[in-house]
Parts: sequence; C-alpha cells; structure tokens
Amino acid sequence: MNTFGRNFRCTTFGESHGKAVGVVVDGCLPGVPLAEADIQPYLDRRRPGKSPLESGRQESDRVEILSGTFQGQTTGAPIALVVRNRDVRSEDYDALRDVFRPGHADYTWQAKYGLRDHRGGGRSSGRETLARVAAGAVAVRCLAPYGIAVRGRLTEVHGATEPEAMEEEIRAARDAGDSVGGVVEVTATGCPAGLGDPVFGKLDAAIAGAMMGIGAVKGVEIGEGFGAARLFGSEMNDPITGTGFAANHAGGVLGGISTGQDIVVRIAVKPTPSIRKAQRTVDTAGEEREITVEGRHDPCIAPRIVPVAECMLALVIVDAMLELAKYRGWARRAEGPEREHR
Amino acid sequence: MNTFGRNFRCTTFGESHGKAVGVVVDGCLPGVPLAEADIQPYLDRRRPGKSPLESGRQESDRVEILSGTFQGQTTGAPIALVVRNRDVRSEDYDALRDVFRPGHADYTWQAKYGLRDHRGGGRSSGRETLARVAAGAVAVRCLAPYGIAVRGRLTEVHGATEPEAMEEEIRAARDAGDSVGGVVEVTATGCPAGLGDPVFGKLDAAIAGAMMGIGAVKGVEIGEGFGAARLFGSEMNDPITGTGFAANHAGGVLGGISTGQDIVVRIAVKPTPSIRKAQRTVDTAGEEREITVEGRHDPCIAPRIVPVAECMLALVIVDAMLELAKYRGWARRAEGPEREHR
Amino acid sequence: MNTFGRNFRCTTFGESHGKAVGVVVDGCLPGVPLAEADIQPYLDRRRPGKSPLESGRQESDRVEILSGTFQGQTTGAPIALVVRNRDVRSEDYDALRDVFRPGHADYTWQAKYGLRDHRGGGRSSGRETLARVAAGAVAVRCLAPYGIAVRGRLTEVHGATEPEAMEEEIRAARDAGDSVGGVVEVTATGCPAGLGDPVFGKLDAAIAGAMMGIGAVKGVEIGEGFGAARLFGSEMNDPITGTGFAANHAGGVLGGISTGQDIVVRIAVKPTPSIRKAQRTVDTAGEEREITVEGRHDPCIAPRIVPVAECMLALVIVDAMLELAKYRGWARRAEGPEREHR
Amino acid sequence: MNTFGRNFRCTTFGESHGKAVGVVVDGCLPGVPLAEADIQPYLDRRRPGKSPLESGRQESDRVEILSGTFQGQTTGAPIALVVRNRDVRSEDYDALRDVFRPGHADYTWQAKYGLRDHRGGGRSSGRETLARVAAGAVAVRCLAPYGIAVRGRLTEVHGATEPEAMEEEIRAARDAGDSVGGVVEVTATGCPAGLGDPVFGKLDAAIAGAMMGIGAVKGVEIGEGFGAARLFGSEMNDPITGTGFAANHAGGVLGGISTGQDIVVRIAVKPTPSIRKAQRTVDTAGEEREITVEGRHDPCIAPRIVPVAECMLALVIVDAMLELAKYRGWARRAEGPEREHR
Repeated sequence: MNTFGRNFRCTTFGESHGKAVGVVVDGCLPGVPLAEADIQPYLDRRRPGKSPLESGRQESDRVEILSGTFQGQTTGAPIALVVRNRDVRSEDYDALRDVFRPGHADYTWQAKYGLRDHRGGGRSSGRETLARVAAGAVAVRCLAPYGIAVRGRLTEVHGATEPEAMEEEIRAARDAGDSVGGVVEVTATGCPAGLGDPVFGKLDAAIAGAMMGIGAVKGVEIGEGFGAARLFGSEMNDPITGTGFAANHAGGVLGGISTGQDIVVRIAVKPTPSIRKAQRTVDTAGEEREITVEGRHDPCIAPRIVPVAECMLALVIVDAMLELAKYRGWARRAEGPEREHR
Repeated sequence: MNTFGRNFRCTTFGESHGKAVGVVVDGCLPGVPLAEADIQPYLDRRRPGKSPLESGRQESDRVEILSGTFQGQTTGAPIALVVRNRDVRSEDYDALRDVFRPGHADYTWQAKYGLRDHRGGGRSSGRETLARVAAGAVAVRCLAPYGIAVRGRLTEVHGATEPEAMEEEIRAARDAGDSVGGVVEVTATGCPAGLGDPVFGKLDAAIAGAMMGIGAVKGVEIGEGFGAARLFGSEMNDPITGTGFAANHAGGVLGGISTGQDIVVRIAVKPTPSIRKAQRTVDTAGEEREITVEGRHDPCIAPRIVPVAECMLALVIVDAMLELAKYRGWARRAEGPEREHR
Repeated sequence: MNTFGRNFRCTTFGESHGKAVGVVVDGCLPGVPLAEADIQPYLDRRRPGKSPLESGRQESDRVEILSGTFQGQTTGAPIALVVRNRDVRSEDYDALRDVFRPGHADYTWQAKYGLRDHRGGGRSSGRETLARVAAGAVAVRCLAPYGIAVRGRLTEVHGATEPEAMEEEIRAARDAGDSVGGVVEVTATGCPAGLGDPVFGKLDAAIAGAMMGIGAVKGVEIGEGFGAARLFGSEMNDPITGTGFAANHAGGVLGGISTGQDIVVRIAVKPTPSIRKAQRTVDTAGEEREITVEGRHDPCIAPRIVPVAECMLALVIVDAMLELAKYRGWARRAEGPEREHR
Repeated sequence: MNTFGRNFRCTTFGESHGKAVGVVVDGCLPGVPLAEADIQPYLDRRRPGKSPLESGRQESDRVEILSGTFQGQTTGAPIALVVRNRDVRSEDYDALRDVFRPGHADYTWQAKYGLRDHRGGGRSSGRETLARVAAGAVAVRCLAPYGIAVRGRLTEVHGATEPEAMEEEIRAARDAGDSVGGVVEVTATGCPAGLGDPVFGKLDAAIAGAMMGIGAVKGVEIGEGFGAARLFGSEMNDPITGTGFAANHAGGVLGGISTGQDIVVRIAVKPTPSIRKAQRTVDTAGEEREITVEGRHDPCIAPRIVPVAECMLALVIVDAMLELAKYRGWARRAEGPEREHR
C-alpha cells in the first residue's frame, strides 16, 4: 500500500538510489493556484546537507509538476510530482548487500519479499518522505484559504529540551559515532469543528496512523497523551463556556471529531539506526557478522522529521476537510436546486 | 466510516440505547470452526457490571450469528453478529438532551451532524466497542491455528503500577465522584516476520490507528515508544544473532514490517469523562450551564479497554496475515499449476 | 467483497436458507426521514409468490431497522436493516448437496471455497438481492428531495416485446419445465450534470459494474449501447442547443460524467438456470449425473430483477451525488468561514 | 478516482497536451522480470499514426521505468512508468477553447469542475489510455507464467464483420468527414476456476466496470450477452461433464466466479465524436454555435481500443488472481508453520 488518504489520495513511488522519487496526488479540487514554487520550499526544508549535523548527501531536490495543472491552477486531475535523484553513491552500500543493518528494515524486507534493493535502504529509505512532503505542500496550499496552518518543532533530544542543549546532544552523539532520538510536536491551527468520524474514521486515529507511518516514529500522543493516564477526569475534561473551550487537554479532538481548537500532536523519534559503532548482526546466509555502518547519516533524524510530520498532519486534515465538505455540500443542495445544473 | 480493515473487514453498527449493536465481518476465509460459544467469552470479559468498580448497567450481551457459517464452519460469506440491547434506561439521559457533557463527543457530534441521539452517547458510546470485541473474537479464532495469541493487561492507573494500588486509585476516584486514567499494554506472540508493508501500510501505523481509534485513548507506543527519544542508537538497535534478535526494543516491528518477535503496544487511556463532580459547560442554545453527570459509569475505563485493545490488535494482525498470504499464495502458484483448477 | 459504494456504502450479508438477510448502510447523511414503512414497499415489489409466474416461496420479508435512526430521522450513524428468513424448505435441496447445478454458482463456489452452503444457493442465491433492495430504498429516500427518481420496466422476454406476449413466453416456458431470459430498462430522471469522474470513476462504469453484479445479468448498455456500433458519429453525437441537448443517444453520460439528461440503462437477463428439464452435470466426486432441478423457481427472473436494477442504479447515483457534494461543499467553504463552526 | 484495482492498483495521470502521461503500479509482487522492452510493444500497438486510417499525431511513446525494479526484476515497490508527450499541437484546439464539442466530455467536465484544460481533451483524452496500456503490459507479464493470455480483435465496424468490409467502412466515413463505431471482442485463456467473488466482487462485474470505463464504450457483454435474453434455460445452461464444461454460453463466469473456461467479453464502441461535419453546439457563454472539429482524429477508434481492452481485462484478472492467491496462501499456511519465518 503506497497510497495515503481517502479523498485526497497520495500515491508515492521511488527508491533512495533509483531514478526518481515522486507522488501522484489524486482528489485535489480544481481551482487551487499551484506551481513548483509552492512546493519547493517544503522540499528545501526537508533536504539533507543544510548543516554539519545532517547527512552530507547533496541533492538539489528540484520538483517537477508533470500533470494536473493548467494555467497555474489545479484542474481536478491527478497531480504528478517528480524529483530526480542525483547524488547517488550506491557503492557506499556494496558492503551491506548481504548483511542486515540492525534497526533497519533490511531483515524484515528480505523476510517479506525475498529480495531487496539494498542501496541506501531502497524503498524503505527516509528519502521516501520527500514524496510525502511534496504532497503535503499541495495540501498546505489547499488549506491556506481556510486559515488552517500546520507548524512543527523539535521539543526534545535525548532528554534535552533547550535548543542549545539539544544541539549539543546531537553533536556529542555524532562525535561518538552514535545517534540520538527526540520528540517532535506538531500543531494545526484554524481547523473547524466537525473533522473526523465517530468510529473507525476518528481524526485522532487517522493522525496516529499517519504519524506512526513515518519511519523511526515509535509513539504518538494527542493533547495530554500519556499524561492523561495520570489525571483525574475533573482535570482532563475541558470546560465549555459561552466563548468556547476553557482549556485544551484533549488536544483538539473529542470522540474522534475536531473541536475547533488547536490540534496538538507529539511523536517520539527513535535514534537513527545507522551508526558507526560496531554492532552484532547476521548476513543473508545466517552467518554472524559485526558491522559499522558508514555512509552519510544524520546523527539525529528528529529535526528533519519536523517538515514530514507537518505534511502528514496537513494531509490528514485536508482529507477530513473534503469529507466534511461532502456534508456541507449535500446540505446545501437540499436547500434547493442549483441554477447551473439543469 | 464504520468499516475497519482491508482484507478482514469489520463493519459495525448500533447505538448505546438503540435496538442492537452488531458487526458484519467480511473477508473471513472458509473452513474456520465458529460458533456463538467462541465469541461469547470475549463479550463476557468486556461486559459491564462484573465488579463494584464498573458501570452498573446489566446486559447479558448474548451474541447471535445471523449468517456466514454452515455446519459449524465459516463459509467465506460475511458473518453478521448481533447483540440486542436490554438494560436501557434512556430516561437517565433526559436531563442531558440539550447539554454538552465535557470530555464527551456531544459537542463535536452536534457540530458535525446537526442532530444527535443523546441517549447514552448514542453511536459514540463505549458500547460500540462490543461490536469490535465480537469481530475480534472471530479474528482470534482465525489466528489460533498459527500459534498467534494476543494478551493485554492493565499496567498503570493514575500513576500506580501495582494491582492493589491501582484498585485503590479507582475506588478513591469513584468515592470522590471523579475518575482516573490508566495505561494498557497488549502483546501479540507467535507472529511471523513479514506482516505489514513498508510505506503507508506499515504494521505499526495500522496498530497506532486501531488503538487511537478506541474511545478515550490519547497515546500509543510500540516497543520503547517515547522512551526511544532518550536512547542512543547503540542502545535502541536490537542486535541480530544466529538464533534471532538479542533484544526487542523495537517492539517487534522494523521498517513497518514484523520481525517475528513479540509485538508490544502500550496505550494511554484518559479518565472517564462522565463524573459526578460539577463541571462548566453550555447547552445547545449556547447558554452556560453547570452539570453533574449521573447514570452508571466506570470510574476508570482502562480495565474494560483491555479486551477491546486485544481485539483491535487481533484484527490488525489477521488483516496483515491475509495480505501476507497473498504473497505466499502467489509464490506457491508460480511453482506450478494446481491440480484442482484446470 | 460484500460492500458496495464509496460514499454510501452498503455491506450485505445472509444466505437463502440461513437465519436472516440484511445490510448495513454506512455513509447516509443525517436528517433523512426514514422508517420501516419507507423500505417495505420496495421489498414487497421484489418479493416472490405474488403471481403464478413466480417462485412459490412465501416470505413476508418484513424489514427491521436495528440502528442509525432516532426520532424518525437518520443520524449519520450506520443503518442496519435485517429481514428474517421464514419459509425455508431446505430439504428441497438435500438431493443437490453433492451435485453441481448447471448455470448456477455451485461449481465455481466449490472451486473457490472448497465447501459451500448448498441450501437454496446459499450466499449466491437471488435472495441476496433483498438486501440490495432494502439499501436501495434508503438511497431512493435520499434522492427524492432533489427530484431524482429511478424507474425500471421489462422491455423484452425471449424476443417478445409486448406485455401480453411476454407473459405468454413465460407461461410457455414454465409449462415446458424450462425458463426464458429478458431485457430490463432502467431510467434515472432528475440527475444534475456533474455526476461521475473522468477516468476510473466514470458514472457509466459504475453503473455497468453495478448492473453486471446482479446475478443472471450478462450484458449492460448505456444509451444507444450496442446500437452505437452501427451509427455514424453525425448520428450518435447529441447536438447541444441554447435550451439543452437536442437528443440523448448518449444515455445521459458523456466522458463518464452525467449530462443532466435522463440516464438510460438496459440489461440482458439470462434464463433462470433452475429448470425441470433433465441436464447433464457432475457431482463433487467428479462422477457424471443427470439432474432435474425441483423446488420453487421463477420461469423468468427478469420481472423480479426490475426493482433490483432500480435500486442498484439509485445506489450508484446517491454515491455519485455525495462525491459531487464534496465539490460543492468545498467550494462553498471557500467563499468564507461558516458562522456555526468557529 | 484515478486508481484502478484493489490488489494490483494502477494510478494514472497526465493530459493529452501536458508534459507527460504515466501510471504508478502498486501491488505488483516481487521477482517478476520487467524492463522497458516488456512494455514498449504494447504502447506501440496502441500508438496513433500507424496507418492512414488513424490519427496522424506522431508520438514515439517511449516509456521510462522510474521505480520499482532492481537488477531487472520487480521488488514489490510501486512501479512508476512515464511517457513524455512530444507532438503537441495545442494551437489546433485554440478555436475550441470556449465551445463544447458534441459527444465529448467538454460540457460535462465544465459542469463538474468549472474550468478545464481544453487542449486535446485534456485529461478526458483517449491519450489517457496509454497509461492503462503501460500498466496492462505489466499485468500481462505477471500472468504469463500461469499460462494466462488475453487477446482482442475487432469483430464489427458499422455493421460490417469482414476485415475488408470493415476497412472500407472506416475509409468511407473518413472521406465523408464522419466517423463510425464498432465492436471489439476480448478473450482471456488459461484462467483458473475461482477468480472473482460471489456478490459485489463478481468477476464479470469488475470486467463490465473496467470495459465501460474505457472512453467511447457504450455496452458490455459476457458470453451470450444480450443474446441470452432470447434463449431458453435449457439452451443457455452449459452442461458439465467428467472432462469439463460441454459449452461456454456463460463466457467463463458463473455466479461471478470464473469457471476455468475462456472468458469472453464484447464491447460496443461508439463512433469517434470528433468529426469534420458541421454540428450544432453552444459555447461557454451559452450562445449557439456551429462547429466542425478539425485536428487529427481516428475515423473509427475501435481498432485502437483493442489493446486497451486487452490491458483492462489483464488488469482485472491479475487483480483477481492476487485475491485468490490470498486464499491459497492462507490455506497453505494452515498446513503448518513455514520454516523461513520463525
């Protein structure tokens, strides 16, 4: 399954060291102004090589719109976005062809498919998130006229919560040939009440699935999250007043449906599995091996997950907005026949 | 969306105070032995009224199989399971007809649908989980021959982690007219490697969506979960040896695909929103009101979520097993034509 | 797959000689007036035993709404509809337990599933259409306020096209222990332009799938249908004038999207496969057998397919209406924020 | 909806006069040998400009595989196929910018989307079928090892059924500035029994939807098709013998499931709507206009639909094969645990 979404459907493709990575966005409504320049800034934010604390892979990550727009607007037809891979150093991975890197998908992919593209993680590479970001940028563009915005930030690295301390943790891990994890918080503002469905289509369920579907994410919280397990009901319940909710312990979702408040999500990101320190593993023949993973890796992937998490949240919200629009559109029609459709 | 799953599809229906609650299970393979007696024990575990610390609602919750079995076996046709509601005291809710209970779906349902069945939460009631448990019991039955089992347990209540202390927390909350949250851990044993897909069909993403889709759940973790944010890569990565993995920090999933180890999931359950303590809210006319929620409520819903979480995990796994079976079946056919199909 | 539709989703269940037949309708918008009395007339039209030219099975086919309505209106929650089977004479089928009836699904079901409920065709019985009709009646109820109606009629039986001649063909077939086929035409009036999608979601593609999915249907035509193969473009193209289309050779669909004209569909119904005449077949052991199919069968099933075809067309249209409503609702929201959702 | 298929999912994109046309094939199993050379011959068969009776548009239609293969084999990852457009003469369509061509999607697209890419029909162009053919070629490649093949042929043009007479009809229509329709028959050989599901997932329903979803198709028949309406049951039913079925009036499908015989489908293709003869229409302002459609068009599109229909049938079959594989794989696993997945 390489498709995400029900109404605003994104189908991604591409491998880390293949020809290209891309996405087809199907279900975007017509009339949305869209050009490469709307998408590129999001890819730039996600791009590696921006600082010495990131992977040194150099990719310009230039996006091309192949379809779905006409005269600068979407037409309702599927939007194909493609980014060609350029700085491919597949030879870095030759030594890893027959060995399973601990913490990576190597072992499980082989178990499932019986063969794999070992170069840079192939389809399981973090490079796949590029396609999500491209699609998410389109979602952001669709949401802007409604005043809906999505913002993420790094809130914790290896226990540190201050920017300087977080950077220091990353630097220390890098210097030790190791890596560290972190926490990212993403907030959506401006959402109307009514997004999401009461049972299996809960908005928070969709968010949880979307976030846990980002590689390296091991936990998801909405609002108080795990902290809610330590509260009384009288603390957790958000009072409702004549001017709205008096608190937001719920994180903007009640009974699976948005309340109209900020939607607040936190995700736990594990340490990058690629480390230079020696690790025990086996090769495809089952023989025990010791490996050190060379190549160009981020000592902490959490900062680069920020735009990815924003984009996934934007995708969930635009999808729910379209579902809600169905209700609004149906109700509208019930008021009377529309002129333009005899 | 009241359907869950892609291959093993459960469509639930029913309201807390309606005629019945039920589920149609579509996609169950033929030849699975199945009778009401296989499902009833799961409903009994979930049933309220078993202890003084639970809701006093008395329901026998007898399940009836309406279709999909013949001579004690599934036929491949959809299995309809129905439980009639009996102990309905809708008048308990008359006072709540026009007021939004804090922490409940009342406000958001009204915002989305414009009308609602206020009796006992209607479709948003926890009683809906009965249908999930019935479907999950069928999933458990399908998984048993493969040696796959799912077990859940309450690990924390309001900060307490010992059984007696947890019970004490619940009792204290009840006596105070308040409620408390908790944490539930669910583990699946016996799963093969290869369950789940690498990108949007990740097994852990499906689990996260399934768990967050249970009412009152505000957080989900796999393996180390949020703890992973505080580890080094050299601590988090599970070494692989000739006899298997040497640790399970990953919680049984790497790159979205099962490793063959135990799948370990933890969920945060918020305090039951129905409390007797006075709370501020508004009515449907927007007027401020103070309410105390009477009726029969669990002071801590976490214990009763245990079988629900087990069943949701079983549903995710049986669905992934069917997806994997597709691969195995295709590969098998490639070996040569089958006799029985000329 | 026992679910039909994308927005207005019907999941059917039940076997000919099981406990019940039913359907869960998911995706129906709130506020639609709905009671058993709205559905029953459609079931009555489909019911067997109304004339000597139909199967003699006597079923009252009383529908019960188990969920999804409150105070006489839909709530947006799934609507479960159930009809209990009563006049079950399973012993009629004892002789057929181990033999494959020609023209029926017996052989193919066994080939696929390895076991089957042989009683009255089990899940493959025409009785399954009862659930479609129940769901279709809900769809009809949803469409009525928009002035959309669906009407079907029998246009041909075994070559005869006049009512009396058609009846005579059926009578003659019955007396000969044989059966005959026919043609049914269904027309939807009042549809707006804009239903359907340009590529794989074409309205006519959905209609064709829906109609061919009715048991015994072997052909589907829209507008001129197969006659279009014998026309010039200058004859087939419908001229457009200032007051609308000047003809309707297209049958109300162009490029997969409705034109706003009548949607006209014709389907070919094969002769009922159950006949008293001796036929060659084999049993489950592969031994050759000669059978005559006793029991209560319609000598021509086409008349009873009329309400089924109407209902399937109504289901396709309500589904497309909801998809279109998404566009209308989105556009509406773009005009400005709505008051009711801050 | 620009995605086709449930297990073998094809998402197409691209417009007639845009940058490219393409498809992402998701769900193809790993280990299938695949290179551009496997796909190109199918695109060449579909390509215009091969004879004076076809559109004069000159496109090399070279396909590029962007992802999903490694060392000449599929990996299980999505396969992106792209064909760049080259011979784009958009100025041919300038005169049609504000006018609706009769028989085309111009009017309905505008009604639905409010704007459109008028160049060459945009997304509604027959050029979109190129992507289906590319995907279908992958399906054909997957089916070959099972001995399953799909073949189509033109059986009728404007009433003529002999090759020479059919060509003469096309030539005469072209010379008259008109166009003609035709009938195409497609047959799948080598399919196992067991493809398709009994109710909404019927194989013939999927085929009907797939075929009617090809632009210009107005009718679909399986086996006897509309002829079945004129038969007795004793003629229509295919006798079963110890060595198999003694006839194939059913066209290879009974009760929605394949019988193991040839699957035989016929489709009615309407005359190409683009004709040089003067036609009445309106412009986007609602003013009446007379137009003659210049540009490069096929006087009969039926011959070029042959490979498209083959590919759509192959896509339906590979999808059903994967669904069936699920059953086979599940059954296999039930026999005992597999060694490779402890």
